[in-house]
Order: sequence, then C-alpha cells, then structure tokens
Amino acid sequence: MNKPAKEAALKAPASFKTIALIGGGLIGSSLARAIRQFMPESIIVMSDRDPQVVSRLKELQLAHRVELDSRSAVQGADLVILCVPVGVCADVAKGFVSFLKEGCVLSDVGSVKASVLDEISPHVPENVHFVPAHPVAGTEHSGPDAGKADLFVNRWTILTPADNTPSDNVARLEAFWQALGSTTEVMTARHHDLVLAVTSHLPHLIAYNIVGTADDLETVTQSEVIKFSAGGFRDFTRIAASDPVMWRDIFLHNKEAVLEMLARFSEDLSLLQRAIRWGDGDTLINLFTRTRAIRRSVIESGQDTDAPSFGRD
Amino acid sequence: MNKPAKEAALKAPASFKTIALIGGGLIGSSLARAIRQFMPESIIVMSDRDPQVVSRLKELQLAHRVELDSRSAVQGADLVILCVPVGVCADVAKGFVSFLKEGCVLSDVGSVKASVLDEISPHVPENVHFVPAHPVAGTEHSGPDAGKADLFVNRWTILTPADNTPSDNVARLEAFWQALGSTTEVMTARHHDLVLAVTSHLPHLIAYNIVGTADDLETVTQSEVIKFSAGGFRDFTRIAASDPVMWRDIFLHNKEAVLEMLARFSEDLSLLQRAIRWGDGDTLINLFTRTRAIRRSVIESGQDTDAPSFGRD
Repeated sequence: MNKPAKEAALKAPASFKTIALIGGGLIGSSLARAIRQFMPESIIVMSDRDPQVVSRLKELQLAHRVELDSRSAVQGADLVILCVPVGVCADVAKGFVSFLKEGCVLSDVGSVKASVLDEISPHVPENVHFVPAHPVAGTEHSGPDAGKADLFVNRWTILTPADNTPSDNVARLEAFWQALGSTTEVMTARHHDLVLAVTSHLPHLIAYNIVGTADDLETVTQSEVIKFSAGGFRDFTRIAASDPVMWRDIFLHNKEAVLEMLARFSEDLSLLQRAIRWGDGDTLINLFTRTRAIRRSVIESGQDTDAPSFGRD
Repeated sequence: MNKPAKEAALKAPASFKTIALIGGGLIGSSLARAIRQFMPESIIVMSDRDPQVVSRLKELQLAHRVELDSRSAVQGADLVILCVPVGVCADVAKGFVSFLKEGCVLSDVGSVKASVLDEISPHVPENVHFVPAHPVAGTEHSGPDAGKADLFVNRWTILTPADNTPSDNVARLEAFWQALGSTTEVMTARHHDLVLAVTSHLPHLIAYNIVGTADDLETVTQSEVIKFSAGGFRDFTRIAASDPVMWRDIFLHNKEAVLEMLARFSEDLSLLQRAIRWGDGDTLINLFTRTRAIRRSVIESGQDTDAPSFGRD
C-alpha cells in the first residue's frame, strides 16, 4: 500500500455499521469480543453451521444476533468475515454470496491466501469487494470459549487484495483491523503464503512431527517423555495442540510453499547431522550464535516477551 | 532406586553442611539462590574460572565465599557440584579431585550423563562418592544474573549413579534435590541420554535448525520473518537462544542418541511431506489429533501451563 493510502486508512473511521462473522471458533469469537470492546456502536451478527456452537454463542452473548444459516446472517451486513477453516472457505462463501448487500466488503481470516483468493473471487458479485486478510494471531485452544478481546492487539494483520480492488475498500478494512489493535500490511497473496510458510506453517509441521516421533519410541516410555518434557519438548507440544482440521487445510492449501520450505529445512538439518557425526563444533557454535541474535530481534520488535520461559513459571 | 531406599531419602535431612558450586552460570547461580532459600544453614562456596563472573558473584552476594581457583573452593566441602558445560566437566574435575574431602559427594548438573560418568569416574579418589545428576530445568538466559531460586521447583532431577555407588550417598543427593523442590528419579546414564535426546536435545536441534533456515531465505526478508513470527516461529526462537557452548557440548557428547532420534524424526517428516504432496488429509488429521492428546498429558502432569500461548500475552 502506498503512503497516502496508508495515511487515509489510519484516519478512516471504523466505518462498518453491521458486521457478520461466519464461524464462531477461536478467531470468530475473538473478533466478536474485540469488536464489542473497540467498536461498541457496531452491530454484530454471528453464524455457525454447528447448532451446539450457535447455542454456546447465544449463551456467551457475544453477538446481537446468532444464526444457524449464513444466508440470514450476511443480509444487510456492511462487512462479512469468513472465520472458518481454509478448506471450507469457498464452499461456505458460495452458499451466501448472492445474499450479500451491495457495496459490502467480504473478507476472511485464513492462514493461506492464494487458494482462498483463487477459489472465492469468481463467485463474488460485481458490487461486492473481496479483500482477503489474515490476522497473524491465535492460540492453541479452539472454539467459542477460547476467544479473547485482545487477541489482535500488537499483532500484524496482512491484507492480500486482488490487483483490481479499489484502494478505499482496502483502506477501510485496514482501519477496521487497526481499531482492534492490530498493525496492518498489504502484500500479494503469493508472497503472504511464502512468508507464512516459514513463520507459521513449517514450525507447526515440525512441532507436530517431533511430538509424533516421541510418541512412537519403544526405548523411551510415553510417561518418561511427559515427565521430562521441561527440557524443551513441552514447548513443541503447545503448538502441536492446535486445531487438527484447521492445520490439515493449511498444509493442503499451501502445499507448494510448505514443501519448498520443508526441503530447505531438511537440507540444513542434514548439514547439522553431519556436523554432529564428525564432531564439527565450529559449525554448531556458528549457527547457535546466529540464532541467538534472531531471538533478540524478535523481542526488540515486540513480537515476544523477554521473560525466561515466556514467564510461564 | 528401591522403595525402602526411596523412603530413607525422603526422610533424610539435607545433610551437606558445606556445598561447593563449581561454575557460576544459570544453573550454578540458581543453585546458590535455591540453597540459600531452602537450606539456610548450609555454607555456600562458589568458584568460576572467569574473573568477571567471580566479581559479579561477589556483587550478587550469592555465596559465603567465592574463589577463582576451584581447588580452594572444594576444600572441606561435603558436596561439590560441577555446574560447567559438559565439554569441560572432566577437565575441570581433574583439576580439583585430589583436594576433595574424604567422604564427600561429587556431582554435576550436565545434560549428558554417560560421557560424564565415563570421563570423570577414573579420576575420582576411592573415598569420594561420584553421583552424576541432571536437573531437567533451565531457561534460555545464561550467566550469574539469570539464576532463579525456584528454578528446580516442580521439576525433575535425574540421578545416574554407577552400579557400585553406595545407595545411602544416592539417597543423600536425592534428599538434597528434593529439599530444593525437585522430584527425583534414578536411572542408568545410558537410559538418561536416550530419554533426554528426545525430550530436550532433539527439540533444541530442530529449533536451532528452523531459525537458521528462516534466516537464510532470499524470497522472504529477515524483517518479515520477525514481524510475522507470532504464527509459531517465535516459540522456536526462544529455545534457539540457549547457550551456544553448552549446546554444542551436549550434541557432541550425546552423539549416538541424538543421531538415532534425528533419524527417526527425519523418517517421520518424510511421511508427512509425502502426505502433503499427495493430499492425504487423513494421515495429517490422525497425527494432529494424537499430538493434541499428548499436550493434555503434559499439562495434567504439571509440566506446563494450560494458559493459551503459555500465558505470555
């Protein structure tokens, strides 16, 4: 996004009167809580295709209206956000697109952007503006009870509009996310998928894999793995506790970028393996010193806490 | 350890009057703080071969006496604990063993046990009892300022005595660690190294590796990696910020077990890679569901917090 557009976005009011959230899981219910806190004038409509989630959303009183049918939910909404796993985004969207209000902004929160853009765009009516987005935030917990109003505060939200999307609609959506405490950045869907493959998808794949490996050993019992997990393993179990369906969809929809990053990871790991086998301590020290510097940058950028062990003890 | 011996250990007083800690880093300085808090009658002597660390230890007033020379530090001590990187343990021990008091217990805190046992045992005088130990606790920070009195509370300490070590000396060291809040377990050094290879050494290797891979990309900038690290990557940077020398030594001294676990990890990763390439969602879902259950066990066992994102936000 160019500089004048960015300034416009920062000044723009959160100009969506009625907001429909399709899907009431961790992100959908966090959005509802955040909108209620940061934009108390907005009207929130939620929908979920699971009747149990619908009744829980009603109990939690997160929205002004909760619907089982997404077609009823989106009617009259100025902003509609898909908060469902990437694998069902297109199908869910196809179900309600013809009920969208003229001039409305349609967005999503998926962790993969190119496939969502490709699959949904052909079905979006001409007078509706589709601006895919991805808040880089979350926790390992799922469902409507897991949501938090401050989930997006100090986190980045990436917007990946198509080339022909009018910039004022992009700016309006940036202003929306900024009002929830997020910082925004605009990039192409393809570049997003490459960046997230390394900062999110590969870490999750590695974490799932090592927890699986540990679970399969014959020489070390599962009880030993769990007892002595404070040596490092427990950090990986947190990430490997993330929602299975959401993550299956991410890997299958960002296949190319994930496989590319995985190939690089495996190459680098072979080098480390060789260094250990041949007692090459210098290679190890060099890498371990470099990675320590990256940790410092992550902390200086405000993306993590400097408290030892994340301050959890 | 058999049951009567275990009961004896639990009843035993923390029977070391003078305790010498050789090395004043994260673990040595945590031990000093913990002994001061939980065994206020004990006399603490510390030594470090780095004059800067010695003067910092004096400033922090962590010990009754601080020495540059380990030979002076160990004289008259009832318990001597090596708190130095695994790679220098044997050399440091050889320097002072002839100054050890008759009947004293010599121990260490290294993350690898078989090599330490093999390298130090031949040099230990007959009237000194060598009981290697490993508190499975730590943080990514290093040095005398990083220590915490409660570092060992609710953590496990593993003791790996040689077969011929009198059980009362093992029991006395167990009682010592229990008095600092730790739970103890006795196993062979070889088994320890296998267990820790999976719960600690492999996770660190993987974390160092992925942070290095991310740092080497041409298509994604380092600034992007850092900005969007909240998607999972930042968790790995914490572990990859651990002390470089300590970790080089661990990998080189537990080579066999680490390479064995790494081979299994890589095999499993190939399976996941194939599942992604061929769109085999069931394999992914099965693994991701299994790993979620392991997270629950880690939390139920008290080895991690259930707060989302470790409660760091």
